[in-house]
Amino acid sequence: MSNIKVAILGASGYTGGELLRLLVNHPEVSIEYLTAERHAGKNIAEVFPNLYKVLEMELHPLDPTLLPSDIDFVFLALPHGKSSVFVKDIFERDIKIVDLGADFRISHQNYRKWYGEHPCPELIDEAVYGLPELYREEIAGAKLVANPGCYPLSAILGIAPLLKREVAEADSIIIDSKSGVTGAGRSPSLDLHFCEVNEGMKAYKIGEHRHMPEITEILEKFSGLDVKLQFTPHLIPINRGILSTIYLKLKEKKSTTELLDIYNDMYEDAAFVRVCRENEFPSTSMVRGSNYCDIGVKAFQESNTAIVVSVIDNLVKGASGQAVQNMNLMKGLPESTGIENLPIFP
Amino acid sequence: MSNIKVAILGASGYTGGELLRLLVNHPEVSIEYLTAERHAGKNIAEVFPNLYKVLEMELHPLDPTLLPSDIDFVFLALPHGKSSVFVKDIFERDIKIVDLGADFRISHQNYRKWYGEHPCPELIDEAVYGLPELYREEIAGAKLVANPGCYPLSAILGIAPLLKREVAEADSIIIDSKSGVTGAGRSPSLDLHFCEVNEGMKAYKIGEHRHMPEITEILEKFSGLDVKLQFTPHLIPINRGILSTIYLKLKEKKSTTELLDIYNDMYEDAAFVRVCRENEFPSTSMVRGSNYCDIGVKAFQESNTAIVVSVIDNLVKGASGQAVQNMNLMKGLPESTGIENLPIFP
Amino acid sequence: MSNIKVAILGASGYTGGELLRLLVNHPEVSIEYLTAERHAGKNIAEVFPNLYKVLEMELHPLDPTLLPSDIDFVFLALPHGKSSVFVKDIFERDIKIVDLGADFRISHQNYRKWYGEHPCPELIDEAVYGLPELYREEIAGAKLVANPGCYPLSAILGIAPLLKREVAEADSIIIDSKSGVTGAGRSPSLDLHFCEVNEGMKAYKIGEHRHMPEITEILEKFSGLDVKLQFTPHLIPINRGILSTIYLKLKEKKSTTELLDIYNDMYEDAAFVRVCRENEFPSTSMVRGSNYCDIGVKAFQESNTAIVVSVIDNLVKGASGQAVQNMNLMKGLPESTGIENLPIFP
Amino acid sequence: MSNIKVAILGASGYTGGELLRLLVNHPEVSIEYLTAERHAGKNIAEVFPNLYKVLEMELHPLDPTLLPSDIDFVFLALPHGKSSVFVKDIFERDIKIVDLGADFRISHQNYRKWYGEHPCPELIDEAVYGLPELYREEIAGAKLVANPGCYPLSAILGIAPLLKREVAEADSIIIDSKSGVTGAGRSPSLDLHFCEVNEGMKAYKIGEHRHMPEITEILEKFSGLDVKLQFTPHLIPINRGILSTIYLKLKEKKSTTELLDIYNDMYEDAAFVRVCRENEFPSTSMVRGSNYCDIGVKAFQESNTAIVVSVIDNLVKGASGQAVQNMNLMKGLPESTGIENLPIFP
Repeated sequence: MSNIKVAILGASGYTGGELLRLLVNHPEVSIEYLTAERHAGKNIAEVFPNLYKVLEMELHPLDPTLLPSDIDFVFLALPHGKSSVFVKDIFERDIKIVDLGADFRISHQNYRKWYGEHPCPELIDEAVYGLPELYREEIAGAKLVANPGCYPLSAILGIAPLLKREVAEADSIIIDSKSGVTGAGRSPSLDLHFCEVNEGMKAYKIGEHRHMPEITEILEKFSGLDVKLQFTPHLIPINRGILSTIYLKLKEKKSTTELLDIYNDMYEDAAFVRVCRENEFPSTSMVRGSNYCDIGVKAFQESNTAIVVSVIDNLVKGASGQAVQNMNLMKGLPESTGIENLPIFP
Repeated sequence: MSNIKVAILGASGYTGGELLRLLVNHPEVSIEYLTAERHAGKNIAEVFPNLYKVLEMELHPLDPTLLPSDIDFVFLALPHGKSSVFVKDIFERDIKIVDLGADFRISHQNYRKWYGEHPCPELIDEAVYGLPELYREEIAGAKLVANPGCYPLSAILGIAPLLKREVAEADSIIIDSKSGVTGAGRSPSLDLHFCEVNEGMKAYKIGEHRHMPEITEILEKFSGLDVKLQFTPHLIPINRGILSTIYLKLKEKKSTTELLDIYNDMYEDAAFVRVCRENEFPSTSMVRGSNYCDIGVKAFQESNTAIVVSVIDNLVKGASGQAVQNMNLMKGLPESTGIENLPIFP
Repeated sequence: MSNIKVAILGASGYTGGELLRLLVNHPEVSIEYLTAERHAGKNIAEVFPNLYKVLEMELHPLDPTLLPSDIDFVFLALPHGKSSVFVKDIFERDIKIVDLGADFRISHQNYRKWYGEHPCPELIDEAVYGLPELYREEIAGAKLVANPGCYPLSAILGIAPLLKREVAEADSIIIDSKSGVTGAGRSPSLDLHFCEVNEGMKAYKIGEHRHMPEITEILEKFSGLDVKLQFTPHLIPINRGILSTIYLKLKEKKSTTELLDIYNDMYEDAAFVRVCRENEFPSTSMVRGSNYCDIGVKAFQESNTAIVVSVIDNLVKGASGQAVQNMNLMKGLPESTGIENLPIFP
Repeated sequence: MSNIKVAILGASGYTGGELLRLLVNHPEVSIEYLTAERHAGKNIAEVFPNLYKVLEMELHPLDPTLLPSDIDFVFLALPHGKSSVFVKDIFERDIKIVDLGADFRISHQNYRKWYGEHPCPELIDEAVYGLPELYREEIAGAKLVANPGCYPLSAILGIAPLLKREVAEADSIIIDSKSGVTGAGRSPSLDLHFCEVNEGMKAYKIGEHRHMPEITEILEKFSGLDVKLQFTPHLIPINRGILSTIYLKLKEKKSTTELLDIYNDMYEDAAFVRVCRENEFPSTSMVRGSNYCDIGVKAFQESNTAIVVSVIDNLVKGASGQAVQNMNLMKGLPESTGIENLPIFP
């Protein structure tokens, strides 16, 4: 009955685990094959004890030649640089792919500048940026989708409407983003040790985070404008959630109502974007565990500026939920299949 | 298509909100009527912003005479003493009821001792204790089910097998329970103010918590033994989760394997109890957001004792998930309908 | 031997408690008199159990006529509007005062606009803004000091050097501040209930927080420039700490080194401001429990902008530690007496 | 003026950092020499940024031959097995030592059973167990003091009075302890990664934690009784704090008042033990950052049992504060010199 046979390469990190949480109950998916370099040979439920007696499958080594022949969808949840090695082989076997890594999100030129040598440049042009609110049709027809980065997703959904309608200036955007710790991945390090993170907060990689060129490029492509922005990520001691506070200059005076109309209009058909009412702003608690992106907007007429607040669960809309949404589109399923679970509060 | 028309009386607390989270996606349920004393007139999404654009319904005042005539299932999520006022009226209208409050869990005698005058003593004998792992058949035939308290649920599932098989002494049980803060409800108070709770832990109501007689009574009824126990609840600064560490004396030497066999045997058909492997013990993170109760057991042959660790999400298996499971049984649905969502980790 | 006899009016809130923590061990202070409206008659150690057997004193009702005649220093830790009622009477008795509330921080005009009618306008001109890094000498000579707001303190120390030296534009400052929950006070409310705050984050009072005019006014007074700024406060689920990320436009190209020189120069004699090394940025964990304000700076030459990150413990440098520092100056003591305790990490 | 020249071997872990926090302001101590194996060559403020501009000293490699000749007190804050290598050399140089590790806390026999081969058995008999509430005089005369483990300290102070007075049975003690995460040390591992720990709780090393024989041995030595106990440690997502809930059988009926008298009597001269009033129980928040151990007691006459709750800050009274207290005694200083800082709340 389940007609999509899925493989996840890199199943032992947080985005891999979140894919499993969502896909186990997806009515059209059968999870067939999992890899995890360091944990090969183990059962996935040893790596994610929450899956105990729910999904007990062996983890395989990361070898694309071992991919079973009947797989018809692959999620790549690997560190950047690693995806590309497999993606070509899989791509040529006509298996559709969502890559949750960074390899196919940005141009070759920017990739080289921010990440280094690209291991598979020939496929860059094949990839569609997996943000359905901007590129729904392109995704539906794609064989290879580059799933957005978590910060970019929250920022782009907050900014795109005002650039597209040419309401905001494109050359002076400020994005102040705050992220929970799952966004930093599952590899142990002193920086992510419980006691180092707990009860504190900090900015990091100020002006040099790799998600900055991704935000810039996608906004430029979508709006046709020349975009200049500042982006400051912060680490906040919670598990899940990104909140981006975005400061924009408006080209001309607009009221909050006028701005909200633009958002409501652009996201009218977006099942997972919820525009807040006037004078309301979202908390990350409103979206925890769900695929929603909630957006609040306020205009300041005296200064001709606007502040936009955008929140997501970085593991769902910011990663694995978005990946499933993309798979649904690529496979012709209703967009929200398997990701309709409500936010969990508190 | 949804054929159970549900009302929730007391929808604005945490157990009410969790019922909504689970029932919105329940395939056989239609949420028809919500009450909330203090918030009457508001939209439920004002009280639970995570429900924004998902479930927008008016909250009604708490007046049983206003219950629509086509309701065929009622969840009572009210403080103790309040349920009873409505339950009689509803009961007589042949509407099935799960009461998440304390009014029908224990004997009239114990109720008077621990809670005070009972407002509806005539229905006490009608109520079935809603713990399917002990009373599945009785629940299926019941009109009124008393949903277990959160601490009792975690304790009873951890202790019942060893009493039933007369392996453990009944007169010297020690239950040391640790609970997340949602267990204390949603009413603001200095004790539950973020900064008072965060980064600390404490024991409270030592030897005088109202869940103590509930644990004792149910264990006595189920095992036929005379039970004496000590129960110490603790408040831990997390949102969800109860972990009960249970200290038992064994009647005769048993190995851990022998004890695990008893648990696996008793819970063989229990969809939501997961007995851990030998030398493994559960974390509350393994069950967060799900209806599972995970149990680990260890025997100490030199001292003839055993330690049992039992974990639940207090809002799901400890309250609203258990309530839905009971509704499923009472309505002849597969037991796990609508509550199959996986634990959310991290 | 202790020669300053201190009274604290409003001792039962978090800033009152923090004053006690610092003053109990202050070598020149004797705590003589405490008030707390709602808790009058109780022992302070009932209200702050950490003081059990350390400081056991009765809490008095809030009545200025009852102030003992030998008090020679008063801290007002009262909600705005309340301070003024007492301050006049105390002022006239020649007792020096630090007011931790908002009544004397801003001009009469701004007070009326943002807070309402001022209960004691005749003393506004007597008050000195209690930020020693800007007004050390004035504080030393003052009878009435208005202790800065927590957000303003973190913002002003981060911005003042670049305005004073006319390096940054004054009309387009953006301050994105993140605060721990003690900043919201100790009064219980649903918004501050543990489970509502924990594991989430949100912006609030966007563009309408009362600390905005305070930041603007002080920066204008200190720099002589016309200041325009945007200020967005956020609530973060930690107890203590404010981190302000400040976005500035520079008048001309400057390197990070040049900017750091300006900060190091201005704060050369400031015992409690620590300017970070190049490419280093502070975490709130670095200052927790201490009177430090740590500041990191980065210039972006391509865009002619700078980002400043400033962190404090909102209860110490952002409130009670600053108040003690002001008292020390007003009483001719070494500035850091009694507040030399190190940050507590983790 | 500072007349104790101190070295800390193993300064880069949490107990090392906490020693520094306390010793920097200790009026009789001058910190002279720090080692840290992995961080040798770095500045201590790189490893503990809270010390930036407060204590800037080079970290040396762990080589006892390099210890400066004028050091007159050494703190060993090393993993077990490592202390012993240095301790002999230092001991022979007549330098007094507090070892915060496990090497000299228990008998040779138990050490071999629980830890393995002892690297310096000849000094075991020289060591005094550093719990002043039990062994004040012995500590004052000791050259080598074994600082207690964090769990043992909280358990022993809670149990010792009732065993010493032969009020409680010694053969059926149950200790259920909950610890913050700093107790697990500063080495990164998946188990201690923020997201794995946050919002969850678990029991670990049930019945096999190395602190169990330490508790047993010390209680036996102090009471002269044959002690049998069960000990279950739990990991709780907070930075600091241990709460031990202790279940005791009483030899004969006692009221809570009678039990409290015993505690108050035994701890009359103990500056850092605070016995709670009847019906009051401590939270770890009451002692955070301080050297206090707070104890609450309740008797249950119907079952002839008692429950004791004991809390400490595991890094202070459970480690570094206790170590400073021991140093004070060994050096003839007032016992509380340098560790009088109050609990920090919240």
